[in-house]
Amino acid sequence: MSSTPEPDIALTQTLFAKVREATFDGVGVTRKSYGEGEQFAHELVTGVARDLGLEVETDHAGNLYVTLAGERRGEPRLLIGSHLDSVPQGGDYDGTAGVFAGLAVVSALKSAGVRPERDVTVIAVRAEESCWFPFSYLGSRAAMGRVPATVVDEVRRTDSARTLAEHMADLGLDPEGLRQGRALVTPDNSSAYVEVHIEQGPVLITEGVPVGVVTGIRGSTRRRTARLLGEYGHSGAVPRAYRRDAATAFAEFAHRVDRRWIELEEAGHDLVVTFCTLGTDPEIAAFTKIPGEVGFSLDIRSTSTETLAEMDKLVAEIVPEIEGLRGVRFDLGPHSGSTPALMDAGLQDGLARAAEEAAIPYKRMASGAGHDAAAFADAGIPAAMLFVRNQHGSHNPNESMEIDDFAQTCRVLMGYVAANA
Amino acid sequence: MSSTPEPDIALTQTLFAKVREATFDGVGVTRKSYGEGEQFAHELVTGVARDLGLEVETDHAGNLYVTLAGERRGEPRLLIGSHLDSVPQGGDYDGTAGVFAGLAVVSALKSAGVRPERDVTVIAVRAEESCWFPFSYLGSRAAMGRVPATVVDEVRRTDSARTLAEHMADLGLDPEGLRQGRALVTPDNSSAYVEVHIEQGPVLITEGVPVGVVTGIRGSTRRRTARLLGEYGHSGAVPRAYRRDAATAFAEFAHRVDRRWIELEEAGHDLVVTFCTLGTDPEIAAFTKIPGEVGFSLDIRSTSTETLAEMDKLVAEIVPEIEGLRGVRFDLGPHSGSTPALMDAGLQDGLARAAEEAAIPYKRMASGAGHDAAAFADAGIPAAMLFVRNQHGSHNPNESMEIDDFAQTCRVLMGYVAANA
Repeated sequence: MSSTPEPDIALTQTLFAKVREATFDGVGVTRKSYGEGEQFAHELVTGVARDLGLEVETDHAGNLYVTLAGERRGEPRLLIGSHLDSVPQGGDYDGTAGVFAGLAVVSALKSAGVRPERDVTVIAVRAEESCWFPFSYLGSRAAMGRVPATVVDEVRRTDSARTLAEHMADLGLDPEGLRQGRALVTPDNSSAYVEVHIEQGPVLITEGVPVGVVTGIRGSTRRRTARLLGEYGHSGAVPRAYRRDAATAFAEFAHRVDRRWIELEEAGHDLVVTFCTLGTDPEIAAFTKIPGEVGFSLDIRSTSTETLAEMDKLVAEIVPEIEGLRGVRFDLGPHSGSTPALMDAGLQDGLARAAEEAAIPYKRMASGAGHDAAAFADAGIPAAMLFVRNQHGSHNPNESMEIDDFAQTCRVLMGYVAANA
Repeated sequence: MSSTPEPDIALTQTLFAKVREATFDGVGVTRKSYGEGEQFAHELVTGVARDLGLEVETDHAGNLYVTLAGERRGEPRLLIGSHLDSVPQGGDYDGTAGVFAGLAVVSALKSAGVRPERDVTVIAVRAEESCWFPFSYLGSRAAMGRVPATVVDEVRRTDSARTLAEHMADLGLDPEGLRQGRALVTPDNSSAYVEVHIEQGPVLITEGVPVGVVTGIRGSTRRRTARLLGEYGHSGAVPRAYRRDAATAFAEFAHRVDRRWIELEEAGHDLVVTFCTLGTDPEIAAFTKIPGEVGFSLDIRSTSTETLAEMDKLVAEIVPEIEGLRGVRFDLGPHSGSTPALMDAGLQDGLARAAEEAAIPYKRMASGAGHDAAAFADAGIPAAMLFVRNQHGSHNPNESMEIDDFAQTCRVLMGYVAANA
């Protein structure tokens, strides 16, 4: 493929507006996984794709495939995509930006009469927001036959308490395909997966760069329901030596974890550490009492498995030390987490080259949040991501990607497709 | 006065039992200030005192004075006392122990026909538990004419929302006396105030000593409603440099305050420091979010004004430092506190001597909680306190003073009275 037309940004502007209008909930937008709003967006994309004369396909799980046919049809296709569901009261760009970026590229290629060497398929995956079905990357893993057979009848949507199978049946989809582990997307038929997504942090905004080339998706080591147990007592009458104070023990623990983060970051590790929630028990703790309990949650993320292990090691070391020193007891609760997903080095370089050729500034950076790209990488399909500069994070009504930044990102994507598809 | 009879412990056992029976609330005992339960206890003591042939007087504020007349009636009297109200669901000994200890002494002296040189007056003060009327040492300060004139019509009982004047009127007392600042107890007519009280911490229990001679009542510097303000963000997507994390800022603050406590304690300062409550906002904070706010309360106490000032200075120093380093803002909220009250050195020595002469082990120690003794000391009346060994602290139904320890304490008190009154 030689010529590189300008991506069809006008089309995406219409799509962003229509989705917003149809799924506005009074505060933000809500498109539940396998719900009305997500279905509206899938039908909207289907209609647009048919109007453009593109091939449209839907799999057993309701994932949508919009294909611009290539010269060599039997060969592995290039996938470009993201998801169309949203969190409750979400923003306009999380998920949609990735699907619409793909459409901007294939629409422009189609209009310009450019036929790529290989198929370029825009994939709109289902059910990425795990607030609805508590199972990560449900739609993309269903496309790849990587959802355990029992999940479809066991996992329930958090708002309705109905199973995934029931919600799929509502839309005329095929739960049996999930039970059988049917795989439409495989490393044999897909050469790569590229996902455009708004950045969910402030890095690109702060550094004045419109586009990010993602190096990896951070994995995590997590304690969602940890507790520090001490003993309640009179805040005036109990000398230090006789205390089992959960609050100062928490402060020491959190501060030592925080200092280790500084050290590891200075040594070049990719790492973020968050005590997301913490608190004394509002039923028992009170002014003039030594707190006998502090609850907290801890979310540690890194693109490196070794760094996550390093932090787990630190926690394991300081817990008994603080217990011994302060007469308290840690109950760290269930341990959960995920494995980091590295983005394909060749794909990263290809995207970086496309940005350089278009003279668009970009920054290589990690993704702190999980994305479908992690599921594709995990299945052995080379995956990569482009971030679009975006203010106010995501998962809230204030997401505010500038359309110019989105256009720049689509140009990078177009450059990559032109050079590689 | 020469002979030292054995204190009348049998009388106090009857009194403890009667008060408990009459004011048990199903969980602990409840005797609201200027309420039914407190009134019951005052009438019980009045009846016993009359039966013993002692002089009984009540002042405008309802404080009760039971006097064993001395040889030299015009001279300053020795006051022995405490309060008879309780917190909701309180224990059997907080307050009562001090009044009954006084009765155990005067009852025994009266029965033995011993007439002291000077009057010995057992005082049962009203309204010491400030959970009912939010004004410290209301009863004892009313006795000394040290309650501002407006308080009686302004301060309201927390359960009824009715004014102090209204509650006093219910019991036939005289709010006008408070408005006029009438003073029955003055440094001219009172040589000393001695209060027996259960220890509210674990020191005597842990060290195996039955009696404490109190060196001072800790004052405080307090922040009941402090907040650390940062910015909410994605726990995976925001790198350290761009965070304004309220939780790690709190951890650093609390840990540095805690370390300073260790340093000052090692340097011999009397000090206790408590972060009584702390927490992220349960409405906004959630797992996978950086917390944008942490609320906390801080109660710092010491018998030394200089030590309190030292801690205030530390807070003033580290607040801007942490703000600068971490992009957060402290809102420390209203600053409150109280001045430490030193117990009279001569009285302390007199009580210690009485313990030594009776071969009763004792320990000199600070009182972490506030007591009426602080109000007497503040008014210029030499004050002192004896602590009774007690398990499970106070202000809960599990207070468990052993009657033998109480008897030992009463013996020390008797020895002091015999030698000094």
